[in-house]
Amino acid sequence: MNPLPKELQSLVALLSCLPNFGPKSSERIALYLLKSDDDYIEKLSKSISDIKSKIGLCKICQNFSSGEICSICSDESRDHSKICIVEDPMDSYAIERGGFYNGTYHVLHGVVDPLNHIELDELKIASLYKRVENSGISELILATNPDSKGETTALYIERMFKKFPNLKITRIAYGLPRGADIEYADEVTLRASFENRKEY
Amino acid sequence: MNPLPKELQSLVALLSCLPNFGPKSSERIALYLLKSDDDYIEKLSKSISDIKSKIGLCKICQNFSSGEICSICSDESRDHSKICIVEDPMDSYAIERGGFYNGTYHVLHGVVDPLNHIELDELKIASLYKRVENSGISELILATNPDSKGETTALYIERMFKKFPNLKITRIAYGLPRGADIEYADEVTLRASFENRKEY
Repeated sequence: MNPLPKELQSLVALLSCLPNFGPKSSERIALYLLKSDDDYIEKLSKSISDIKSKIGLCKICQNFSSGEICSICSDESRDHSKICIVEDPMDSYAIERGGFYNGTYHVLHGVVDPLNHIELDELKIASLYKRVENSGISELILATNPDSKGETTALYIERMFKKFPNLKITRIAYGLPRGADIEYADEVTLRASFENRKEY
Repeated sequence: MNPLPKELQSLVALLSCLPNFGPKSSERIALYLLKSDDDYIEKLSKSISDIKSKIGLCKICQNFSSGEICSICSDESRDHSKICIVEDPMDSYAIERGGFYNGTYHVLHGVVDPLNHIELDELKIASLYKRVENSGISELILATNPDSKGETTALYIERMFKKFPNLKITRIAYGLPRGADIEYADEVTLRASFENRKEY
């Protein structure tokens, strides 16, 4: 029998649905909330209940945005002729944190996954096609994950857009991650780092 | 610069206040919430905002309870002459899960901590005194943690209650945890397990 009061049990059960929340950590969080001050509780609960109504998708790049157009797509200092295609908003945030890329993004919100019947047209691809068709895009950088679904997706997109004559389509490079140990690198990565070697 | 939309950033900031929540896991939870269905979001947000108004302290044992008297204190099948004194509700839940204890509890909601000026009378001790004074309590089991603050607290409580002639005051035992390896046990624990040895 669960020794917690019923209302605490139901909060714990709701928290347990979150990713990486086991029963133990959910219990710890629930008890922490019980001891938190009212102001924090109210802010957190309101922020959670409002989040979906306050954040939508950018009309252009489909990334999360609080306005119709996200801050990157409305930033005139960025290079709007380059589009970096990512699976997920998180991927774009990771690239943004790097600070090396000055183009725009397009978020697919998923990957092609034939086994689960997810085809390219179920992703945010129509809006990408329109972008390429209508404005002077010079390069699509395919930055889907280097796993089988990400590769399949990249391949499908490459096929779809290769008919545009002045559009460069590139794929992010494979190789050893910085700080890696050759001794422990997997064969596929090692082979890629040899094939993609550059002159010094 | 943080690439997340402002409203997402503020949810991430609020989540980061929770125990064991780094910026990465808060971001993951925030994005998960953004993709969750409205029903779950509403339930979670309501459960968080209601939790403090729905859960109070049991009038008798000071444990968390949805009613005036908690389920253990109102359970007539339990042995109300025994009180197990714990620092925190979580400790009582851990003991309850063991299923070996049939007495009642008293939750101190803290420990004596002279360095931070927390004295015994700032804990839920007055209500314990009243319980011992007014009803036929035969045993106090001191189940504060076996660390320096827990020991100090246990000592203070023992001093406070030793004047009651028919009251047995016991302390939970120290020793090697089951499954432990003697080779790696710390000296204090090992010494305790020798001093508390029992005849076979």
